[in-house]
Amino acid sequence: MPNWLLPEFIADVLPSEARKMEDLRRKILDEFRSYGYELVIPPMLEYLESLLTGVGQDTEIYTFKLIDQLSGRTMGIRADMTTQVARIDAHLLNRNTVTRLCYAGSILHTRPSGLQATREPLQIGAEIFGYPGIEADAEIQSLALASLKAAGISGVCLDLSHVGVLKALIASDPLAQIFEAQLFDLLETKDMPGLIELTKGFHEDTRTALLALPSMYGDVEILKEAKKILPDTEGIAKALAELEYLAGQAECDRVTIDLADMHGYHYHSGVMFAAYVPGLPNAIARGGRYDHVAEAFGRSRPATGFSMDLRELARVLPAAEKRHVILAPWSDDEKLCRKIGELRQSGEIVVYELPNSRSEHDEFVCDRFLVQEADNGDWILKTAGNE
Amino acid sequence: MPNWLLPEFIADVLPSEARKMEDLRRKILDEFRSYGYELVIPPMLEYLESLLTGVGQDTEIYTFKLIDQLSGRTMGIRADMTTQVARIDAHLLNRNTVTRLCYAGSILHTRPSGLQATREPLQIGAEIFGYPGIEADAEIQSLALASLKAAGISGVCLDLSHVGVLKALIASDPLAQIFEAQLFDLLETKDMPGLIELTKGFHEDTRTALLALPSMYGDVEILKEAKKILPDTEGIAKALAELEYLAGQAECDRVTIDLADMHGYHYHSGVMFAAYVPGLPNAIARGGRYDHVAEAFGRSRPATGFSMDLRELARVLPAAEKRHVILAPWSDDEKLCRKIGELRQSGEIVVYELPNSRSEHDEFVCDRFLVQEADNGDWILKTAGNE
Repeated sequence: MPNWLLPEFIADVLPSEARKMEDLRRKILDEFRSYGYELVIPPMLEYLESLLTGVGQDTEIYTFKLIDQLSGRTMGIRADMTTQVARIDAHLLNRNTVTRLCYAGSILHTRPSGLQATREPLQIGAEIFGYPGIEADAEIQSLALASLKAAGISGVCLDLSHVGVLKALIASDPLAQIFEAQLFDLLETKDMPGLIELTKGFHEDTRTALLALPSMYGDVEILKEAKKILPDTEGIAKALAELEYLAGQAECDRVTIDLADMHGYHYHSGVMFAAYVPGLPNAIARGGRYDHVAEAFGRSRPATGFSMDLRELARVLPAAEKRHVILAPWSDDEKLCRKIGELRQSGEIVVYELPNSRSEHDEFVCDRFLVQEADNGDWILKTAGNE
Repeated sequence: MPNWLLPEFIADVLPSEARKMEDLRRKILDEFRSYGYELVIPPMLEYLESLLTGVGQDTEIYTFKLIDQLSGRTMGIRADMTTQVARIDAHLLNRNTVTRLCYAGSILHTRPSGLQATREPLQIGAEIFGYPGIEADAEIQSLALASLKAAGISGVCLDLSHVGVLKALIASDPLAQIFEAQLFDLLETKDMPGLIELTKGFHEDTRTALLALPSMYGDVEILKEAKKILPDTEGIAKALAELEYLAGQAECDRVTIDLADMHGYHYHSGVMFAAYVPGLPNAIARGGRYDHVAEAFGRSRPATGFSMDLRELARVLPAAEKRHVILAPWSDDEKLCRKIGELRQSGEIVVYELPNSRSEHDEFVCDRFLVQEADNGDWILKTAGNE
């Protein structure tokens, strides 16, 4: 095997695509900043316990492990930055007030999450710590949609769900509590025959509700139906009210509700959302409330946030337009050096043609060049093609 | 041990410092771009053979190893991005013309290179492939100095050296060829008694030159002395001429020449430079020619470039100034939402005060807030302190 082949699901990003990703990174970080989110940079690796605190087994499988030569302990390479940022909020910043943080960086996965997935997503996201109310979730949702808009993405469909519905149903029935894990599996695969079988001995209200959940998917109207069918407990009423509020706040092409969405159920503690765009089967952005993660770090800090993969985002956007640049001959002439300095200062890109050579670019098109006037030695720009 | 402690020589970057690094990253990448360097993003990990091709054992010791679950092969986490970029030039872009590439990303080291070093430098750099002449080295040197200037760093001292001097000396004496490794070690530690002992049987000219090398350190004048003392071979004449040319081109506070600098001797093939700034014992930027690395990938492509660590760069710069931001009450009022949107669009940072809460920042100072006028319901800015 040649020594320049890369491992599967690992890739280089070449100039035009890299430029698109860099532009996206800046636009989105600037959007985060305009909302008052402060940037943090967590490390690529940490002790394994620290990385996996408060997250489920899903993350452990995806985490590369290493031995630290200095301590002999096992370290992990981050497979997700959210818990790192929660750790920073809980123990480094150590504030008791509302804290808004954002981040952007590579994460690594031992295996791809799908056939088209990468093992090295470029994660970018934002989180609010220290505020338990739905207003923080609304701000995160608004920021996620604004970020997609800033990135130039349109046709966004926002899919909302809430772990509070199933949690409240289970809490209301002792039998359901015993079979929580099985219930989760059946709902995740929308296995109706299995659900019918498992719920036979459940309380009638719980059973009706559980069997109705998988079909509770659609636009906001579905919430009205949910209010009729689901038991009128405090937990369910609160979850449905929160979904209704967030659906009303969302500025995007379409909002859907999915009451049986189990994605991230173990990790989240309240509302969850996923944003879809035309051309991508997987969600382009995911977010939601995860109050219990900070608890695992020994400090109870409510938390809500979202993240995206810049590589996925770049995939759905058209190639960046090539920049027009200026060619300059290689020379020690002082007037030329000064002219090039001025052009670069004014925002132009000036590329030297080294003696007896030619340069090539993906990102750039050379449409002008610098030539010296015979009479006064000044350097002036000429358009390529009209010499 | 609490589960939020980080491994030694690994650290989080908190808001103000992270902002400073993000600003630096953008400024330097923009500087690279204004010279026509195209951005690439190599992966965090590769097969080990691929990462270590063409580099010395130094890199292997610093490289974290992992087993790829998909192939069973050993992968390494990049300890340096230069060879990755050389691989991209040689096999992915596959051009026969001059190619200018740049990059920025985290690299990981198994152990720190010094007591103050990090194990996770944030490497940023630029390379020219496909041009063997000194003009490319001059462009890289000029770009390195321009990048430091763009970053706001002054008082730069540029230290130049050239592997060609020692290589030519060794090539001229069969005995020196046999003892090349020992010569290298003695010169690296400037061990004069050892050098005197080892060179006893050498040709008289070679011996005089080798014993003079360790003291050939100083400003450009030292080159005149070198011309007198060193043998007048083609290799030495070329190396000295290149150093003289580059010293003349350098726009910085001070230029020094060190003919016995062994740093990077095994890796480099021509001129080498290191930039020093007040307050940092280690070089802030290092660069030079390394033509043989691309050869190891099976394609002969001359190469020259430089790189820096953004973390080190940020250390010598003062803290970023806090941004003045605007506070807004949480409200669904349409006029307020519109006003906030306009302010953010115009470049302002607007932070919501979520109900009954207070937010805290490192990066920001809130100096204005939005209040609603009683008569018409419009929202206007008031300066904090003059209500």
